[in-house]
Amino acid sequence: MNIDLTINTDLARKILTGFIKSEITRVGFTNAVIGLSGGIDSAVSCALAAEALGPQNVLGVRMPYKSSSPDSLEDAEKTALGLGIQMETIEITPMVESLIQREPGMSKLRKGNLMARARMIVLYDQSEAFKGLVVGTSNKTEILLGYTTLWGDMASALNPIGDLYKTQVRQLACSMNIPRSVIDKPPSADFWVGQTDEADLGFTYEQVDKLLNMIVDKRCSIEDCMDDGFDKSFVEDVTARIRRSQFKRMMPLIAKLSSRTVGYDFLYLRDWGT
Amino acid sequence: MNIDLTINTDLARKILTGFIKSEITRVGFTNAVIGLSGGIDSAVSCALAAEALGPQNVLGVRMPYKSSSPDSLEDAEKTALGLGIQMETIEITPMVESLIQREPGMSKLRKGNLMARARMIVLYDQSEAFKGLVVGTSNKTEILLGYTTLWGDMASALNPIGDLYKTQVRQLACSMNIPRSVIDKPPSADFWVGQTDEADLGFTYEQVDKLLNMIVDKRCSIEDCMDDGFDKSFVEDVTARIRRSQFKRMMPLIAKLSSRTVGYDFLYLRDWGT
Repeated sequence: MNIDLTINTDLARKILTGFIKSEITRVGFTNAVIGLSGGIDSAVSCALAAEALGPQNVLGVRMPYKSSSPDSLEDAEKTALGLGIQMETIEITPMVESLIQREPGMSKLRKGNLMARARMIVLYDQSEAFKGLVVGTSNKTEILLGYTTLWGDMASALNPIGDLYKTQVRQLACSMNIPRSVIDKPPSADFWVGQTDEADLGFTYEQVDKLLNMIVDKRCSIEDCMDDGFDKSFVEDVTARIRRSQFKRMMPLIAKLSSRTVGYDFLYLRDWGT
Repeated sequence: MNIDLTINTDLARKILTGFIKSEITRVGFTNAVIGLSGGIDSAVSCALAAEALGPQNVLGVRMPYKSSSPDSLEDAEKTALGLGIQMETIEITPMVESLIQREPGMSKLRKGNLMARARMIVLYDQSEAFKGLVVGTSNKTEILLGYTTLWGDMASALNPIGDLYKTQVRQLACSMNIPRSVIDKPPSADFWVGQTDEADLGFTYEQVDKLLNMIVDKRCSIEDCMDDGFDKSFVEDVTARIRRSQFKRMMPLIAKLSSRTVGYDFLYLRDWGT
């Protein structure tokens, strides 16, 4: 099967800036707040928001932890300066340190989740202060693989890049005013020194984006994927990841007792009745 | 219209303990983690979880802020002792204080949101440590009115009481082993000294639960509600609250670009494929 993940970047930009503008203005807002990590996903979300709303209406928030790479901070600043958006820097170290010190042997996983959720808190607090909606920065690859923190980086009011695979976010980045160093560096959550996404995951984005496109968008079977040259174990591993992380893509499950239950039969689009 | 919110507490208990047991065990877990505020909602969730899973498999976490009422802490302890569940106490003060000190004039609303979200962080971290799922404690009244913090108290893996109005939670509490002081005290989020829900909201749970039942469950018009003696302005206010808080009952909106988008056409129940 010929899998081509090339996107029409002009069209995607037009759709996504329109999405941001209409979703933010329809609820009476004009501003956006975005976590600025120095990585490519947040840079693209910021660039889209700046184009949609005007750069002065976008606040990029840098939220370093004490072990965060100085390069990340610098790349975040270069991104903000290039786009002309506003920038704030708020340390998350004191927010998470009291919990980490309570249990010095805490796993990397738990520490990473603490950091991702502390950043959500800062963003939502700045959302109130800056009177802007939180614009998400999770791409389709990480959302499908569950390579995210529930109620952490997954939390936003609207997400312009959640239907773009990582390799497609990169294409969009190349078409926008985003620093070369941000585009070229290896993707990383930067929860600990030397971390990279591809080492964490055990495969490259190039490989997995193709496979996810076959499984999810083209509804291919395991056999189809194997015919295309993917290892059976890789296909099974990725399928299992999608299934296992389903809970990260859902609101809490409510036990049904009445004739209309939130999440089942009391369920409207965001703009219900407006 | 004869609005009667009386529930069959025996049947509700049976359904809700079955819900907790099947939802937790189907994903391979045996334990539950619950924030224990000293209030009636968390007491009922804990009591249901203890009945469903056995009290030794339930961890109640007290998460006081420095201004939290000592009575809340004591009521939480009485609840845990009565049910025989495990209990932990983890202060959230150091987690939120760095942000509050950055902006000493911060509004009560922002501080309350910081606290609710810090508690979510602690619960999800304990979820990992105790190997249990987070069981929610939001009732139908507060979920419909949006009297909750998004990604804060609203965040859980499963919520047994989300389809019960506050007055129905109280009925269930009376049928279970929950301390009288917890049942009888005025409901409060305890974000600041002297806060009560009914003063915050401007109406009583008795009134609003009846009205919500008419609007949501019975699909009555404003005129129907007025015929039943509700003030037009009260009906309009409550309807507006339900609409305005719709975003708190949804996952982030993802811009659609592909043939299968998370939240639109890639949307399965939690137990998809298992």
